[in-house]
Amino acid sequence: MKKEFRSGCPISSTLDIVGDKWSLLIIRDMLVKHKKTFKEISDSDEKIAPSILSARLKLLESYKLIYKTKVPVNKKENIYLLTEKGIRLTPIIIEFSLWGNTNMREFNEIDAIEGLNADKTLIIQTVQDNYNSMLLNFR
Amino acid sequence: MKKEFRSGCPISSTLDIVGDKWSLLIIRDMLVKHKKTFKEISDSDEKIAPSILSARLKLLESYKLIYKTKVPVNKKENIYLLTEKGIRLTPIIIEFSLWGNTNMREFNEIDAIEGLNADKTLIIQTVQDNYNSMLLNFR
Repeated sequence: MKKEFRSGCPISSTLDIVGDKWSLLIIRDMLVKHKKTFKEISDSDEKIAPSILSARLKLLESYKLIYKTKVPVNKKENIYLLTEKGIRLTPIIIEFSLWGNTNMREFNEIDAIEGLNADKTLIIQTVQDNYNSMLLNFR
Repeated sequence: MKKEFRSGCPISSTLDIVGDKWSLLIIRDMLVKHKKTFKEISDSDEKIAPSILSARLKLLESYKLIYKTKVPVNKKENIYLLTEKGIRLTPIIIEFSLWGNTNMREFNEIDAIEGLNADKTLIIQTVQDNYNSMLLNFR
């Protein structure tokens, strides 16, 4: 699963593991929408193919951004949760959201996202706090 | 050159145009390293192939993140400069850098980057100010 890194640049190294068109959408689904199962993530508007989703989940797991576990009520189904390291991607996700909201309207019809006009630091904190609160159900 | 967008999500829409492993590295080269010519960008440590670089520059130009111009002293060579919209990607670039610097050291030897411990808002402002000052030479 491990990749060669293109250089020692921290930007490049980060892109080496989440710099494709799907990984950050999977992180978004988990972090913002609190999706946890393969099926929930598959059902997103962007329609990620199951084979790609499966490969990306394995990659994200190998770099310790997410981990796989089970809930006591359903021992058959895996759920995926973000690690601390994964949750720390929140500022990147929020910056993508803010940039797209401001700069992509001339090219695409962009959904109105509630709360995106708030202070950036507060948005990031709220998203992280909400995710951590949800995690308490699985500990 | 135009792509189909996967959804109206601002994160997804942004990833549709810069969510590949090369586009943000090209933006980094221009924004942080003040690279301007095809050759300068080709010479980066990550060794982007000329065919990919050429395609990505065209894509970034079509979405108005960069523009192509010439310097008076050399009418033969194109230079590429970031637009306002492109310069607004600075927070994304800085967040990638900060995240990689903190979280990738267990997987790759990460270069020490001077100034990365400063206040985030100040880093972003400094990078943008430096780029805008450089741009004055081309107006």
